[in-house]
Amino acid sequence: MSFEITILGSGSALPTSDKFPSAHVLNIHERFFLIDCGEGTQIQLRKLKIKFTKINHIFISHLHGDHFFGIFGIISSLSLLGRKNDLHIYSPGKLEKIVYSVINKKDIGFNIFFHRLEFDAYTTIYESKRIEISAFPLKHRIETYGYIFKEKPHERTVIKEAIPKYNLSIADILQIKKGEDYFDRTGQLISSSELSIPPKKSRSYAYCSDTEYTEQIIPFIENVDVLYHEATFGEDLKSTAKETKHSTAKEAAIIAKKANAVSLLIGHFSTRYKNTDSLLNEAKTIFPNTIAVKDGDKFNIPEQRNDFLK
Amino acid sequence: MSFEITILGSGSALPTSDKFPSAHVLNIHERFFLIDCGEGTQIQLRKLKIKFTKINHIFISHLHGDHFFGIFGIISSLSLLGRKNDLHIYSPGKLEKIVYSVINKKDIGFNIFFHRLEFDAYTTIYESKRIEISAFPLKHRIETYGYIFKEKPHERTVIKEAIPKYNLSIADILQIKKGEDYFDRTGQLISSSELSIPPKKSRSYAYCSDTEYTEQIIPFIENVDVLYHEATFGEDLKSTAKETKHSTAKEAAIIAKKANAVSLLIGHFSTRYKNTDSLLNEAKTIFPNTIAVKDGDKFNIPEQRNDFLK
Repeated sequence: MSFEITILGSGSALPTSDKFPSAHVLNIHERFFLIDCGEGTQIQLRKLKIKFTKINHIFISHLHGDHFFGIFGIISSLSLLGRKNDLHIYSPGKLEKIVYSVINKKDIGFNIFFHRLEFDAYTTIYESKRIEISAFPLKHRIETYGYIFKEKPHERTVIKEAIPKYNLSIADILQIKKGEDYFDRTGQLISSSELSIPPKKSRSYAYCSDTEYTEQIIPFIENVDVLYHEATFGEDLKSTAKETKHSTAKEAAIIAKKANAVSLLIGHFSTRYKNTDSLLNEAKTIFPNTIAVKDGDKFNIPEQRNDFLK
Repeated sequence: MSFEITILGSGSALPTSDKFPSAHVLNIHERFFLIDCGEGTQIQLRKLKIKFTKINHIFISHLHGDHFFGIFGIISSLSLLGRKNDLHIYSPGKLEKIVYSVINKKDIGFNIFFHRLEFDAYTTIYESKRIEISAFPLKHRIETYGYIFKEKPHERTVIKEAIPKYNLSIADILQIKKGEDYFDRTGQLISSSELSIPPKKSRSYAYCSDTEYTEQIIPFIENVDVLYHEATFGEDLKSTAKETKHSTAKEAAIIAKKANAVSLLIGHFSTRYKNTDSLLNEAKTIFPNTIAVKDGDKFNIPEQRNDFLK
């Protein structure tokens, strides 16, 4: 089951010849979630051969142009391609009004549901059988939200051979999958490890852009597998970061460390940095498992068993 | 003195991995004119190393997304880059209202003058000492305009040696440059060719996209050096072209031939055509001097003397 992040754009407000503005796409079990949608997102999706007709949910962090100017093109193209499925767009601010100022609603051949984010605490905004998506406020010049995408806890996997051996019924199996105790017909407790193997780990991805350094987000992203945190500047421009309510690479790394993340992706680099090595090195001194993203990068979180849960 | 067309986007409504939506930039004497502005235009300008801070005039043919969704990004980026110069945008429809629905007017650090096109005849919309730009209606599903960019007639060049030989005054020189007769102090007529060489040819470029086949535009583009005419389809899809009010490659070539253009560029290709050779061949049977444009192509019209005017 896939859990893969693709970086469509790693740049900041001013795109460059090799850095499109912000957009990530997350593939969870072949369901595609688009996170931010800077200008040219649809072009990047085409280049990277991601079928954007498979996107049903778009999450916009905030209404600065480099995070949403691609929404008009995506909507128009989806309509031209004959889409009929609903599209859900999550965003703070008046995105619905903006979209319909640019595109005639009656020219769109499918329904768009705009979900306006307007809260100051961690809030679950989407839930399916296997996935849970939540948003939480970041601290930027305008209302901005971070997102966290989590697989729901998996169940244990019943060992095939145990089924005939203990003559397990469907009700027994459902109970064992949940990790509950099992007693055989003689009333004897059979240990969980004889009947099943530990569940797969629930994977998670958090997206935090744009924001100044804020420890308030740490409880929401604790133990995340992959944390994306903006790193617009280096410590050399810490005062600019503060003024414009952005973070430095070092600050991103401190958040990753304090949140006990497994890995950190940094991006949203200012055009001042022709080369992002200095930003990467700065982050690595604090949090070694950091990667400075490039457009087109893919990060796959493999399935793993929670072996410690034996 | 430059007169160079750069193709930023050669695609149609659906961009592909190698075809951005419509945008051309015309460099006349190091003044840059942007013609249409599909999504990603600013990214193409960066890739092709065209300083978009030098653009003072943008011409939008019509308000279909693939011709103007890049305007928001350009305006935002120009503002971020600290632009102070005025920007002039020519367009039919309510582009001003749309732009200010997306971008907060007070966030833009320079003045934008929106010039709304709303006429049904050939109209000169911009004039400087050396350049004249006119617009004329095309026939598409919504109000659409073609544009023609012309150098104004050049003056003859006075031969240096003639100045001392005939003891020419500044008034004499101005008269000779205009091609008027010159009589020396004895009253003798000196032939123009002894005093000056013929003027440079006035170069011209016409942009016609999107439109169905219409001969009404021919008088406006007669004898143009480079005609860009959309060729969304081939003759195999002539009925689709008619329905959607687009042209076939053959129709573009007929217009070029009837208008006595020097050369024809075709573009705005439907994504159905993975390879544009068939469209090019179709046009060439009618008008051999045709080129099917690709993103990044540059076409320079060299300076030439009007030798026939000796």
